Amino acid sequence: MISRSSGEATPAQPSGRWIVGVDIGGTNIVVGVIPLDGGTPASLATLPTEAVRGSEFVIQRVASMVEHAIAETLDGQGGTRADIAGVGIGSPGPINREKGTVINTPNLGWKNLPLRDLVSHAVHLPATLDNDANCATYGEWWLGAGRGVDYLVGITLGTGIGGGIVLNGEIVHGASDAAGEVGHMTIEFTGRKCKCGNYGCLEAYCSGPNIAARAREGLEAGYESILTQLVDGHLERITAATVYEAAVLEDRYANEVMAETAKILGAGVANVINVLNPQAIVIAGGVTRAGEHLFGPLRSEVRRRSFRSAYDACKILPAALPETAGMIGAAAVFKKIAFGAV
Amino acid sequence: MISRSSGEATPAQPSGRWIVGVDIGGTNIVVGVIPLDGGTPASLATLPTEAVRGSEFVIQRVASMVEHAIAETLDGQGGTRADIAGVGIGSPGPINREKGTVINTPNLGWKNLPLRDLVSHAVHLPATLDNDANCATYGEWWLGAGRGVDYLVGITLGTGIGGGIVLNGEIVHGASDAAGEVGHMTIEFTGRKCKCGNYGCLEAYCSGPNIAARAREGLEAGYESILTQLVDGHLERITAATVYEAAVLEDRYANEVMAETAKILGAGVANVINVLNPQAIVIAGGVTRAGEHLFGPLRSEVRRRSFRSAYDACKILPAALPETAGMIGAAAVFKKIAFGAV
Repeated sequence: MISRSSGEATPAQPSGRWIVGVDIGGTNIVVGVIPLDGGTPASLATLPTEAVRGSEFVIQRVASMVEHAIAETLDGQGGTRADIAGVGIGSPGPINREKGTVINTPNLGWKNLPLRDLVSHAVHLPATLDNDANCATYGEWWLGAGRGVDYLVGITLGTGIGGGIVLNGEIVHGASDAAGEVGHMTIEFTGRKCKCGNYGCLEAYCSGPNIAARAREGLEAGYESILTQLVDGHLERITAATVYEAAVLEDRYANEVMAETAKILGAGVANVINVLNPQAIVIAGGVTRAGEHLFGPLRSEVRRRSFRSAYDACKILPAALPETAGMIGAAAVFKKIAFGAV
Repeated sequence: MISRSSGEATPAQPSGRWIVGVDIGGTNIVVGVIPLDGGTPASLATLPTEAVRGSEFVIQRVASMVEHAIAETLDGQGGTRADIAGVGIGSPGPINREKGTVINTPNLGWKNLPLRDLVSHAVHLPATLDNDANCATYGEWWLGAGRGVDYLVGITLGTGIGGGIVLNGEIVHGASDAAGEVGHMTIEFTGRKCKCGNYGCLEAYCSGPNIAARAREGLEAGYESILTQLVDGHLERITAATVYEAAVLEDRYANEVMAETAKILGAGVANVINVLNPQAIVIAGGVTRAGEHLFGPLRSEVRRRSFRSAYDACKILPAALPETAGMIGAAAVFKKIAFGAV
């Protein structure tokens, strides 16, 4: 699970005071340095992923961000490179944790890429790899909204919809590192086509691009809304963020779209509650910017669709670490594997 | 978790060579005596539940079945009452394992019934209580189709649809003993009304009564089928079993109903695979009598709707213990709680 092929010898007993967290997303790479016992990340940095420039470019960028963050941290806090325990990496999946490879990720264009070992070699530090949605959930569990929760589910709504499950301090990975793919739960089996090829997935309604597409479809069908003005009539420029903005401005149509989004997301969240019965669900991603325009109708729908005792036992929370949960969780995965516990 | 209020003193160190398993269903009560190390149940007996006669009647019936099974086992195998470690009870839920109560079960008409302690008192033996679908899954894991599987999900299709999750030898109960309620996953949020009050639950399509109802609706709309002959024109007599019977006789309409059932069930099973990524799913209940008329189209739909790596990692299996899994699993729950491992 941990890279042992690093240029630097991996200590038999892991040591160090810091872990570098790396979150590789479709849009941005986030890097930070986390104290071993938690606390505020140091040397936080974000750069665009620019995946179109190829995997070598992305790995080089990750490596130089990691080196820069380490140098800055040691400079500011004192210490030597021996104080850096290693690097935890989060990447879109599916991934193979054992081998440290990204099996296939359409957003980045990678196939069977040995990401963990490539980064490990480049920075001469041991490294671990886990799925980005698992990392985001683990980060919220370690230092965010899910702190102290024994049984937590995280749902991240972005370009896609991902999820993670943390039970008694461990990520539930499942039989093939694929657990937690809540975005591709069918919630309308005769419904909208999803980019995965199926019909009626949660993601086909509630991902950012699909919230925007649903809003656009209504406008094209003649609904009136300030959305049209917000994009100067260029409907193709509407994004999920535009819809939240219009909803917060009390635009009626945008609020209808958000209410429908909340209802459908509510069916998905209720499915998670009925099947898993967690103590808390943390919801992350741009959609949470809509605040109570989302969470109000969401909670109503979840209550309607879930078992009473399971609903009562489950808190539904907005994420506390919107930009950094994935990076922090990637570091937590490294800590768990190298040190045995987070 | 274990009744300590038994008339007989509970030994500080649990002992005994046998555990009595009790599965209380909406229709029947199944009782058997299981050797502590597994193996073939002895003194198997089934009687109708007759829940309409009230909870006192049912508990009295359970107690006399337990006493009869113990007497018969000790008679045949030799031994004394000290060889009986205790009684594991499975009941429809939701239940509260800590208190040993059935919170609410519409099929039996019970509310906040302290079932575990009532049975324990009646038979002067320690007892445990768990949800029937959890017990059925645990029984298949201990001695049935899921033997040796580290991460198993069970789905039972009957009057309702229940489920259970077994991870590393333990039932995943969730935050309030409600985990595994796969029957009330929304798979069509604008769909059929479910008896739980919601729309589009898996159970609203694939439970026995709903398979029958869907078949009936088509016949009333003019479809031709030998189903009509099988019930002498009394469509209200159609049950799910009648539909399987007609499907096995190669009736075209009945096979359409089964294919649709398999497709919808496939969406539900794929949801379980995408969210949990288990090593195996055991499917139990009358519907499995349709054999490959069900499992063929079911596997196709699951493959279509689930992540490739998660699908490849998961076996979809018919149950091996159709009548006794719940009773055996109830005994396994007792063993787990009293002896620490199964």
